[in-house]
Amino acid sequence: MVLFGATGDLAKRKLFPALFGLYKAKKLHADFRVIGSGRSVMSDSDFTAMVRHSIETFGRISIDTEEEWTQFISHFSYISLDVMNLQAYNALLALVHTKEKEAGTAGNRLFYLAIAPNLFGPVASYLKQSGLTDTNGWKRLVIEKPFGHDLASAEELNQQIQQAFDEEEIFRIDHYLGKEMVQNIEVIRFANSLFEPLWNNTHISNIQITASETVGVEERAVYYENAGALRDMVQNHMLQMIMMVCMEPPSRLKTEAIRDEKVKVLRSLRRYSEDEVPKYIVRGQYREGSMQNHKVAGYREEPNVKPDSLTETFVAAKLFIDNFRWAGVPIYIRTGKRMPRKSTEIVIQFKEMPQGIFFNKNGVLGPNLLIIRINPMEGMDLVLNAKKPGTDDDVVPISMSFCNNCGQETPEAYERLFYDAIQGDSTFFTRWDEVSLAWKFVDPIRRAWDNHPETLCYYEAGSFGPVESEKLLQQEQHNWWNVSTSSQEKIHGVELKHVDLQHRRPMYV
Amino acid sequence: MVLFGATGDLAKRKLFPALFGLYKAKKLHADFRVIGSGRSVMSDSDFTAMVRHSIETFGRISIDTEEEWTQFISHFSYISLDVMNLQAYNALLALVHTKEKEAGTAGNRLFYLAIAPNLFGPVASYLKQSGLTDTNGWKRLVIEKPFGHDLASAEELNQQIQQAFDEEEIFRIDHYLGKEMVQNIEVIRFANSLFEPLWNNTHISNIQITASETVGVEERAVYYENAGALRDMVQNHMLQMIMMVCMEPPSRLKTEAIRDEKVKVLRSLRRYSEDEVPKYIVRGQYREGSMQNHKVAGYREEPNVKPDSLTETFVAAKLFIDNFRWAGVPIYIRTGKRMPRKSTEIVIQFKEMPQGIFFNKNGVLGPNLLIIRINPMEGMDLVLNAKKPGTDDDVVPISMSFCNNCGQETPEAYERLFYDAIQGDSTFFTRWDEVSLAWKFVDPIRRAWDNHPETLCYYEAGSFGPVESEKLLQQEQHNWWNVSTSSQEKIHGVELKHVDLQHRRPMYV
Repeated sequence: MVLFGATGDLAKRKLFPALFGLYKAKKLHADFRVIGSGRSVMSDSDFTAMVRHSIETFGRISIDTEEEWTQFISHFSYISLDVMNLQAYNALLALVHTKEKEAGTAGNRLFYLAIAPNLFGPVASYLKQSGLTDTNGWKRLVIEKPFGHDLASAEELNQQIQQAFDEEEIFRIDHYLGKEMVQNIEVIRFANSLFEPLWNNTHISNIQITASETVGVEERAVYYENAGALRDMVQNHMLQMIMMVCMEPPSRLKTEAIRDEKVKVLRSLRRYSEDEVPKYIVRGQYREGSMQNHKVAGYREEPNVKPDSLTETFVAAKLFIDNFRWAGVPIYIRTGKRMPRKSTEIVIQFKEMPQGIFFNKNGVLGPNLLIIRINPMEGMDLVLNAKKPGTDDDVVPISMSFCNNCGQETPEAYERLFYDAIQGDSTFFTRWDEVSLAWKFVDPIRRAWDNHPETLCYYEAGSFGPVESEKLLQQEQHNWWNVSTSSQEKIHGVELKHVDLQHRRPMYV
Repeated sequence: MVLFGATGDLAKRKLFPALFGLYKAKKLHADFRVIGSGRSVMSDSDFTAMVRHSIETFGRISIDTEEEWTQFISHFSYISLDVMNLQAYNALLALVHTKEKEAGTAGNRLFYLAIAPNLFGPVASYLKQSGLTDTNGWKRLVIEKPFGHDLASAEELNQQIQQAFDEEEIFRIDHYLGKEMVQNIEVIRFANSLFEPLWNNTHISNIQITASETVGVEERAVYYENAGALRDMVQNHMLQMIMMVCMEPPSRLKTEAIRDEKVKVLRSLRRYSEDEVPKYIVRGQYREGSMQNHKVAGYREEPNVKPDSLTETFVAAKLFIDNFRWAGVPIYIRTGKRMPRKSTEIVIQFKEMPQGIFFNKNGVLGPNLLIIRINPMEGMDLVLNAKKPGTDDDVVPISMSFCNNCGQETPEAYERLFYDAIQGDSTFFTRWDEVSLAWKFVDPIRRAWDNHPETLCYYEAGSFGPVESEKLLQQEQHNWWNVSTSSQEKIHGVELKHVDLQHRRPMYV
């Protein structure tokens, strides 16, 4: 494995801890080798100290003994490299040869690009020119997001990369696909006869996907100012979750069969013309507000943000998948920064009981909900109706819960994805046609906003976004369901149900 | 209220505590009066002492202050009465008149027969002859089980009673209908759009209803020797649960509409000829065995049981409801004494995923289950499949739980039923046509067994019945699901899930 960007943030926070997790779980080959590369000049011992610090700071699994550590780190080496200088790759190639000889590997090479996106194309090209991609083993490219910033740039990038790697050798990371509960969606859908017959527009009223963050833009403003929530979250993570929830059953549970079905969802996803965008999509930017009784700055006051920035930090949208299964079922998504709770959740809202009959006499019976909790809690909630104990006919919502990460910690997304890439399983990576269709959906929205700056709404930090986001749903007599989950609820498994029910009121009652 | 059998076991264990519970919940009229009657000669103060003892021993709610107690008991009086002596009723009538005048009640009279079944007819008749049923208010008869011991005797009893009371004035108690979770069945079914579309033979594989007791025959042998499990449990409680689970949605949620639908289930219940009985119904009698490491006697060694008794202490049956909704779905019931766990549970087993596809490649995927827990735990369990955390494709059963009586104690069945009878709501009482159809189903089974003593099977005390009970299901490739629930699991809400999953294995794997 050659890791470009080995001194960067992602490597420290995610990749080294993931490698150590895999090592401890004995999921790495006994003779694996990792070559870290970065611009900094650094001794091997400085590098290993940095790796250790990263694992101790960010890892979910701790180092037990010095012996273990020595064993683990003996697989690592470091090379300083100016990635824009073709000549520099010769030294890398030599090091790769040395390590391959030393370890007796079969020439299998995995290149991981944890570097700035504008370097993806050139590095791929230099890998080829320098001969690093000439190997008798397999070669793979793992590439971080963003993959382009619009369709044109993505196509250009893809062309550059495909000169050095075939599509099946390219592993485009969307770390949401590495999350346990995102991967669980296909199991929940296809391993339960209870859900399968209900998973369509006859029985489902609407679907709501929320990915809310409490943080503001922090130190990412330089990137974020040009990206915004639409490119940062919607084009990739939110659309991926829609695909997982809405795809048809694949012919087989195999990589390409699954990805074929996911792509079909994007093909059926209704595209909005620039004129239609304001009707279906809301963007917002946070203003000064308060989070847990602390004042926080507005987006425009954040470091490196232009004082008249029009970048959206919030997107809500009403989407439709125009196929037989989903016609007429609104799929609501929302994502934003500086929201009251950090949570990624998918709510499947089932149709309501017919009004006026039985327990819905006054039309007040709540709908059934299936809530798939992605993060930080992992699990499922089923909200049903039952008799209020001890009463005659009072019907109240009850919650049945399954917690996926209460008994044990589950592997981090990067741990799974790293492993899959090493195994050559690209099921949970993004195929090129997914990327390109996602941009085709996103580009007109971006254009509409660029041409109409006045469509930017504002919301207070610490709120769930601008009121326009609520209105999107109210038009259809729907409401956002509050997301739940704090880490505290996670610890006290039992109390969770009660907390849920409190929070599970529609926002407008 | 006139309570016949006021010194009896039922009154002490259930009726006085129920009245006190209703009183505390302010569900009794401010000027209610209770006249207890029994054969014993007893002073009013002896009687009130007995009532107090009963509430303190068996009540779920305790007496808070002496003042409260004095208030409550001031509504009670006692009369000694030989119920087979018509003359004796004159004194009762006089007392009723006195109390009605004292309390200013409108002549509403509720007669509760907590006495031996052979007295039901005569007492009803004497009530009429003595003039006790001549009143300007309403009159009602609450009558305990058993209602006859076969169709002929039930018809005779019904005729006797109906000379004194109209059908709508007769409240035949089946205390299972007073249980919270039995009443919840209609809410679960008709207030959840998730379940309604699945509640039929397209989606349900089979239904299992277990009512297991750990006790043996105890002091009830004199009655039980002639009744047996078929008459004691199946004719009433088990069939009632089947009706609640299987009835069509009624036209309205009103008493007669609901009872009409329940009766239709009994009409569609396939009746077995004497010849067919051995194929579909198993009866068993417990032999010596061990319960929680203690040796316990066999049924024939119990006091007052004949040493060659053929009375069944266990029944298992495979039933079918031959209508459009349920055709082809086996409904398995089993009930017995001296079983390893005390539990009443209904398991709805959904159809399995098609074999060979997706996660059911090796045909090992467990089915989805909805478990309705009636007693001692009250609640629901939904058993689904999900990904085993941290694995690739390992699918494991998970359990989502709702506990109805964890946060609070729920009213005892008799409390509910007493209240309903006072209110004149007979929804959860048994109508005559239900009783008669139940006997029509049961009588041929009884005859078949009487004519073929050799069909009696035996099982060890402490087991779940004879092996023939398992075979009933194995013929259809089904298995009994273990019932769960001890009171310990009830207390530790969280651990319950794990316990469940362990126990939720089919018995034969």
